[in-house]
Amino acid sequence: MLLPHERADDLLRNNLKIIQADDVFSFSMDAVLLARFCSVPPRGRVMDLCTGNGVIPMLLSTRTQAEIWGLEIQERLADMAARSVRLNGLEERVHIEQGDLKEYRSREAGLFDLVTVNPPYLPVSAGEQNGNVHFAAARHEIFCTLEDVLQTCSRLTRFGGKVAMVHRPGRLTDILEGMRKAGLEPKRLRFVHPKAEEEANMVLVEGIRGGKPDLRLLPPLVVYGPDGQYSAELMEVYYGSADSLRVENKERVSE
Amino acid sequence: MLLPHERADDLLRNNLKIIQADDVFSFSMDAVLLARFCSVPPRGRVMDLCTGNGVIPMLLSTRTQAEIWGLEIQERLADMAARSVRLNGLEERVHIEQGDLKEYRSREAGLFDLVTVNPPYLPVSAGEQNGNVHFAAARHEIFCTLEDVLQTCSRLTRFGGKVAMVHRPGRLTDILEGMRKAGLEPKRLRFVHPKAEEEANMVLVEGIRGGKPDLRLLPPLVVYGPDGQYSAELMEVYYGSADSLRVENKERVSE
Repeated sequence: MLLPHERADDLLRNNLKIIQADDVFSFSMDAVLLARFCSVPPRGRVMDLCTGNGVIPMLLSTRTQAEIWGLEIQERLADMAARSVRLNGLEERVHIEQGDLKEYRSREAGLFDLVTVNPPYLPVSAGEQNGNVHFAAARHEIFCTLEDVLQTCSRLTRFGGKVAMVHRPGRLTDILEGMRKAGLEPKRLRFVHPKAEEEANMVLVEGIRGGKPDLRLLPPLVVYGPDGQYSAELMEVYYGSADSLRVENKERVSE
Repeated sequence: MLLPHERADDLLRNNLKIIQADDVFSFSMDAVLLARFCSVPPRGRVMDLCTGNGVIPMLLSTRTQAEIWGLEIQERLADMAARSVRLNGLEERVHIEQGDLKEYRSREAGLFDLVTVNPPYLPVSAGEQNGNVHFAAARHEIFCTLEDVLQTCSRLTRFGGKVAMVHRPGRLTDILEGMRKAGLEPKRLRFVHPKAEEEANMVLVEGIRGGKPDLRLLPPLVVYGPDGQYSAELMEVYYGSADSLRVENKERVSE
């Protein structure tokens, strides 16, 4: 199933494999943390926008029996994602589509219980773009803006359904304002700090379509401990060590 | 200077005293953390809205040579604050006024380098109000809403000046959306967690009038350590132990 220059990397859990290559964006910690942060329905329908090589749909398949879709605008990436799904024998309930989220309208409107998205973080105006279109599109809002993403999230999600996103803290005001404008009330927020005494470089946010205003600010997620090694929680995310299920369980109990 | 049933409590630093009484709201950790969080100009003009018994103006007087005003709508509290200022011999540069922030308009418009505010946190609709008007007004938006507060902050602050507020994380979307609407771009955000593994119960936010969108998410401020005692940073805030000037200095350097 591999094309030249592609490789099948381990995807952390359940012996999953994912097809990657050096000339396109590989999956990042951002996607892994989003796949763990979001509130996944036990069954139903889940959509992952800007799915890239399909890392989030495959990780979510280990957390739910729901049917999962992944939408990606770049043909090369959508093709890699679809082959990764087959490589793992998940094609019965994980579906990859190639297409533009801005035009993904009528058919599935209001049908999803959860929509996840790890969109490009930077406005087109911010900084130099990578000459490689695959890298540039993963980082800069070339194919869609934050507003496009939130409009599509809102359109696809059922009333009372959830939308979970990972983004940069620098855009927080745009994110919360934009979610509310799109009818997605922000309800859970968690910041990711490289170290406990450093500024956050990632934000995880979940909203509810038509939800009531009130937001929970979860404990900080700290990536590295004082010793420079992954914290107990990150070890658990990546390697399944049981040390820090504590926070996750707490979140679940209080929901 | 004390009326019956009043007492002069220690105000942590510089041998300051503050007049308090059991039947009005005493100063809280929220105010102390805001007075430490905000970026204080070395001189110029500072305004503290909803000043209560004047704790923030007095704490700020130890951080700056600026002239400081405090505005409080309740006569009883404004009187206590004014007497506390005299008790500490600060009347030459700390001025307490009694008045309604909604009507504090033309005279001082655009003249302040920094406006601070620890407003009531709860909409009037949320939960039962305390029968004591002093407690009720400190908690519920009886005399002013968040929108009123932000409008006045914006009106008083010079272009490029700062507005710093402490509030509840549950209102974060209202806060960021409201600040932007009032022309106060959110620039620094810090969450206060009772313990490292608990949700935040306080948010400190600073905006710049006419600032460019981009927000820094500072390290979490954790109140209690694993041993149930104040963390090193809180010890420093309250008792001046030097252990954790680290974070504060880092913030200053990167500004």
